[in-house]
Amino acid sequence: MKPEIDYTLYLVTDRELMAAATIEECVEQAVLGGCTVVQLREKNASSREFYQTAINLRELTKRLNVPLIINDRVDIALAVNADGVHIGQGDLPYNEVSRIIGPDKIVGVSVSNLAEAQFAASQGADYLGVGAMFATGTKTEADLTSMDELRRIREHITIPIVVIGGINKDTIPLFKGTGIEGIAVVSAVVAQKDTAGAARELKSLLQAV
Amino acid sequence: MKPEIDYTLYLVTDRELMAAATIEECVEQAVLGGCTVVQLREKNASSREFYQTAINLRELTKRLNVPLIINDRVDIALAVNADGVHIGQGDLPYNEVSRIIGPDKIVGVSVSNLAEAQFAASQGADYLGVGAMFATGTKTEADLTSMDELRRIREHITIPIVVIGGINKDTIPLFKGTGIEGIAVVSAVVAQKDTAGAARELKSLLQAV
Repeated sequence: MKPEIDYTLYLVTDRELMAAATIEECVEQAVLGGCTVVQLREKNASSREFYQTAINLRELTKRLNVPLIINDRVDIALAVNADGVHIGQGDLPYNEVSRIIGPDKIVGVSVSNLAEAQFAASQGADYLGVGAMFATGTKTEADLTSMDELRRIREHITIPIVVIGGINKDTIPLFKGTGIEGIAVVSAVVAQKDTAGAARELKSLLQAV
Repeated sequence: MKPEIDYTLYLVTDRELMAAATIEECVEQAVLGGCTVVQLREKNASSREFYQTAINLRELTKRLNVPLIINDRVDIALAVNADGVHIGQGDLPYNEVSRIIGPDKIVGVSVSNLAEAQFAASQGADYLGVGAMFATGTKTEADLTSMDELRRIREHITIPIVVIGGINKDTIPLFKGTGIEGIAVVSAVVAQKDTAGAARELKSLLQAV
């Protein structure tokens, strides 16, 4: 059976942006500060480094009782028995990912507009990462998703929606009334020296949204 | 059951070095010229591009009746039902790869010395890629494997050995009497305008070795 996931404060790692010395330390602080789910994203690591970090995070997230999602690499998700995988439009197609990873794992899909959202939901995606909502350092070339488009997606889609891209304490209030399940954070948490404190502050802002 | 593989002339693709306009054309010509097995190696492609090329090569290699091996990405090997996967020392560990890909698929391992060769063989690898034998454009930083080390590996290892790294018409004769099962070629085939002719010439040189 697929795990139940609390998408409220969804952490996405970034080795280049993080303030902590290691991914493991970064994730531990972020979860202690209130992150409810962790996605390991590695864009430049070798497969072995990616795998080794995933092994470490699997142990850590089990201990901290939060789910672990692996970005893109279904084989690494399987190797470390992660809770699921997150794929973008440039990764393997959903139907192949779903077949390989099996029925007990979460598959999330990045979408930037209603057409992609409807397609992903119709295929069986467990949740959507919608964005990028605002311009960011991690997704410089991404076409942005407007708040109007987000509202259209919410009207048509019942699976959980997590917004991503430039989400921080200044932009969180803009999501009031949009009916999303959570926000995904990268630099707003991992790039902050007080990683746990940053997560805690965002979490408290989310209570109001 | 694992497929039987003729390792004689083992093609490894290289998108940057190839003379042909597409990987598909390159592979078709190389196989028509005599390559007996194809490894798709993509170092800079997105997962989706890698997958799409793998799908195309799966169809092509089935039609041409040669096995298809995927470099590194076990998930892509599974997604396209390739005949196996090839892993290096920086990829996922053998035992995880073997578990994920299942008992009916080939798993090859790159090794550069006897210790790595013995470890890979003891774990159950189906064949070894030994090298780099000579300095090349594709493996500039690799420590080279000496002919003496290759002979030591052959003495201790019974699974098929394919040498790789700088193998071309000038270096093929050096392998006479080494007892290897095949040679892996990259630029000596893919970078040649007459890709099929280059494969044909190497194949005929191999008859003498």
